[in-house]
Amino acid sequence: MTRAAFYVSDGTGITAETLGHSLLSQFSDIAFEQFTLPYIQSDDDTHEAVAQINRTAAERDQTPIVFSTLVDESHRAILSKCHGLVLDMFAAFLNPLEQELGVRSSHTVGQSHAIRDAEAYRIRIGAVHFALDNDDGARTRYYDQADVILTGVSRSGKTPTSLYLALQFGLYAANYPLTEDDFDDLELPDILREQRHKLFGLTIDADRLAATRSERKANSRYASPRQCDMEIRALEAIYNRYRIPYLNVTELSIEEISTRVLAKTGLQRRLQG
Amino acid sequence: MTRAAFYVSDGTGITAETLGHSLLSQFSDIAFEQFTLPYIQSDDDTHEAVAQINRTAAERDQTPIVFSTLVDESHRAILSKCHGLVLDMFAAFLNPLEQELGVRSSHTVGQSHAIRDAEAYRIRIGAVHFALDNDDGARTRYYDQADVILTGVSRSGKTPTSLYLALQFGLYAANYPLTEDDFDDLELPDILREQRHKLFGLTIDADRLAATRSERKANSRYASPRQCDMEIRALEAIYNRYRIPYLNVTELSIEEISTRVLAKTGLQRRLQG
Repeated sequence: MTRAAFYVSDGTGITAETLGHSLLSQFSDIAFEQFTLPYIQSDDDTHEAVAQINRTAAERDQTPIVFSTLVDESHRAILSKCHGLVLDMFAAFLNPLEQELGVRSSHTVGQSHAIRDAEAYRIRIGAVHFALDNDDGARTRYYDQADVILTGVSRSGKTPTSLYLALQFGLYAANYPLTEDDFDDLELPDILREQRHKLFGLTIDADRLAATRSERKANSRYASPRQCDMEIRALEAIYNRYRIPYLNVTELSIEEISTRVLAKTGLQRRLQG
Repeated sequence: MTRAAFYVSDGTGITAETLGHSLLSQFSDIAFEQFTLPYIQSDDDTHEAVAQINRTAAERDQTPIVFSTLVDESHRAILSKCHGLVLDMFAAFLNPLEQELGVRSSHTVGQSHAIRDAEAYRIRIGAVHFALDNDDGARTRYYDQADVILTGVSRSGKTPTSLYLALQFGLYAANYPLTEDDFDDLELPDILREQRHKLFGLTIDADRLAATRSERKANSRYASPRQCDMEIRALEAIYNRYRIPYLNVTELSIEEISTRVLAKTGLQRRLQG
C-alpha cells in the first residue's frame, strides 16, 4: 500500500511540495500518493484539511505524512491535531530566525509565490517572451540583448532550458541550432561568431539522441545512430575549436542543466525567486 | 546593511532556495543578499563553502543565515561548524520521517531535482513543445490532445501560464487569444466552442492591462484605457454567456495563476515535481 503525503499551504503549495519531494526522495523504496491542499487561509479551510487527512488515515489505517507551510499560528494549532505526522516548516525554523534577526516575523500568509514586486514580474514576462521570440534560431537580431545563447543539435534540450532560465531566473536566453551545414566545415555561423562570449553549448550522448529523435521520426536518417554520432562528434569539435564552454546533458534534468549553466558561466540571475 | 543568506545544496540548490525564500519573505523589513552554493558534494566542497560563509561573516561582522539541504552526514557536520546560523532541512525533518516510515533513508545526494524517471522527462518535454506549438492560437488542430485551453485578451498572461503548466506539471496547455472580431458579436470562435469543456478564461483589470500594453506600444489605440475597458467587458460577457470558468489575474503571480487553474478545473497534474 502506498503512503499518503499531504502538502498543506496558505499559498500555492509550491514550497511545501518542494520541501516534501526533497525529503521523500530519500525513501526510494516507498511509494507515496501525494495530495496538495493549497490556499488554506481560514479556520474553516484548516478544519476541512484536517478532516480530509483524518479520513485518509482512517480508510487506510495508516498515518499520513503532512508537510505544512501554514504561517498563521491558529491554523497551525488546528492542523497539529490531525491524525498525521505534521512536519511544520515554520515551527522548525521561524523561531531561530526571529532570534537571530532580532525581530518578530510578519506571519503574513501566502507570501512565498505571490507577486511582491511589479518590476520582478515585468522582468520575468519579458524574459519569457524573449525566449519564445528567439527560440531555435528564429531571430538573431536581438542577440545584443541576450544574457546567454544556448546552442546544440536538434532535440538536445535547448528550448526547455531557455524557458526555464527565463521563468525561474528572469534571464534572456536565446537558442540556436547547429546543423549539417555547420558540420561540413566545422565553422561557427557568422552570427554566433560575433556573439561567441555569450555562447553556451549543450551536448548529449549519441545513443540517447537517437532514441529521442526516434520518438519523433522513427526510422529516419535524422534519428539514425550513425547520423547522431556524426553530428555529436562534429558539434564537440566545434565547441573545442572555438573554446565554447559546454555540458553533457544526457543524465541531467532541466533544473540541473539550468543551474549548471549559471554556475559555469557566472551569469547573475535577474530574479531571486 | 543587508544580511547575507546562503543556500547550500548537494544538488541544484532549488529546494534550499525555495525553503529560504519562503522563510525570509516573512521578514519584509530586512534586505537579504543571497548566495547559492550548489553541487556541494565532497568534504573539500563543504570546507570551501564554510570558508566563504566565514569570510562573509568576518567582513560584515554579522552572522549569515545558512539554509542547507545537504544530505551527507559528514558534510553536514562540517557545515554546522561555520560562523552562520545553519537551518538544516534534513536535521529538522529526516529523523521523525524515518521513525514514522520505519526505515532509514538512503542519504543519497542530489536526488531532488535529478532525472529519476525517463518517462517523466519525456512527458515534460512533450508538454513544453505542445505549449510552444499551440501558443497564441497558432495551431488548433491538436486541441483534442490539450488538457486545458487558456483564453483571454492579448497580454493577460496566457503564454507564461501555459509554459509554467507544461514545465512544472507536465500538462498540455494550449492558449488562444480573443480579439475584437469575437467581441463584435460576443460569440466564441467555432474552434473554441467545440472544446468548451477544456476552456479556462483569464481576465485582468482594464487599467493594469492598459499599463502593460503601454510598455509595448505607448499611445496606441491597443493600449488606450477605453479600448482595454471595452475588451475586458466583452471578454467577461463571453465567459459568462458560455459559462467558462475564469480568474482575474491582476494581483497574481504565474505560480498563483497556474495552481488556481488546477484547483478550479480539477485537472490532475502529470508530473509530481
